[in-house]
Amino acid sequence: MNNQFQNTIGLVIYPDMFQLDITGSHQVFSLMPNTSVLLLWKSLEPVVSNGGLTILPNTTFDHCPQLDVLCVPGGSFGTVQMMEDREMLTFLQKHGETAKYVTAVCTGSLMLAAAGLLRGYRAASHWAFREQLELMEAQVSTERVVVDRNRITGGGVTAGIDFALTIAGMLCGEDTAKLMELMLEYNPSPPFGVGSPEKAGAELVQAVKNVGASLIAASYDASKKAASRIN
Amino acid sequence: MNNQFQNTIGLVIYPDMFQLDITGSHQVFSLMPNTSVLLLWKSLEPVVSNGGLTILPNTTFDHCPQLDVLCVPGGSFGTVQMMEDREMLTFLQKHGETAKYVTAVCTGSLMLAAAGLLRGYRAASHWAFREQLELMEAQVSTERVVVDRNRITGGGVTAGIDFALTIAGMLCGEDTAKLMELMLEYNPSPPFGVGSPEKAGAELVQAVKNVGASLIAASYDASKKAASRIN
Repeated sequence: MNNQFQNTIGLVIYPDMFQLDITGSHQVFSLMPNTSVLLLWKSLEPVVSNGGLTILPNTTFDHCPQLDVLCVPGGSFGTVQMMEDREMLTFLQKHGETAKYVTAVCTGSLMLAAAGLLRGYRAASHWAFREQLELMEAQVSTERVVVDRNRITGGGVTAGIDFALTIAGMLCGEDTAKLMELMLEYNPSPPFGVGSPEKAGAELVQAVKNVGASLIAASYDASKKAASRIN
Repeated sequence: MNNQFQNTIGLVIYPDMFQLDITGSHQVFSLMPNTSVLLLWKSLEPVVSNGGLTILPNTTFDHCPQLDVLCVPGGSFGTVQMMEDREMLTFLQKHGETAKYVTAVCTGSLMLAAAGLLRGYRAASHWAFREQLELMEAQVSTERVVVDRNRITGGGVTAGIDFALTIAGMLCGEDTAKLMELMLEYNPSPPFGVGSPEKAGAELVQAVKNVGASLIAASYDASKKAASRIN
């Protein structure tokens, strides 16, 4: 067995993230051969996600090596906070310059954009937040996974699985990625078939926007502020 | 706001589990109104999943209240070990008697079966392990999510999301579950379309079985032993 890691993947975590953005990706990446998967945060203290699942980081920002893949998950108000967090933005900018692929899932793309890393790139985000990318000079895409040069972004929460399998195909080849897709039995069957705004219809879309109104508003403000900083 | 929890969901965790079995479910359950989601293990020490993601339990087996939903994830050799772990089996039997729903994702169903909780029930499991359920007197189903009376089981790894949304519909009503499906943007698009044995074809199926050969064999042995215990 070859113990030399060919790929180093850094998953950034932070308080109040949506854990499935990153755990979906992690489960895929952890099956990749010769790959080291880092869970990155400012300290090694436990990180509590939105919903209460608590994950342990294994590498601090200060000790992060050069990455092949930099990946940022989305979340709730913690994401808004991170869009204005100098330490986080500096970390993303530093590793965004050198990583082979600069990537995000869900509203994690707003954090990349706030760090100035999506200017001129097509990108995806959670459907209720995606127009905010435009404020920060990214081009909004409605694809589930968007690959634009070395920027790779996925849509909302559950898109982390599609996203990570796409990256696995790019890093390890399609044969290996197919093996992983079958191992993970990724043969989804959404019970209600309403997982996109188009499928859900106007009434359900509005209901979700109502539930998330204060978060969407706070995120919009943070996006506007970030836009004035990066321009 | 009503602070009284209407539902208490207990997600059992253990070393070497596939974390996405449980994190996919957790992300769904954590969005349910008036619901407490427990992460249950023997102690409060961090639990390291297969692939290295480390999760903190929040409730010990000894302090677990009566559950509305008992849920068990699958995993690698840790699962085989748990199929013979007296403390785990006793815990599952105790709460399996009183929980409103007794559930599992992936090879977690083998653990339920080993505890004698699937005798005479239809159940799902990861496709490469599902025949083993028969040894323990469950009826194998190839559905992604199987509801048979109060036993609810999901297929491999990624099925945890479909599974949890199905349960959310049963506990909170279809309107709430639809809201959650759209919030989570569960609009999957598997990049390779090979997530089931039928879709993947014989060659890829054999390749996955080869990679998992020692695990499948160890699990088969544990299932045979469990069968002789529960009969």
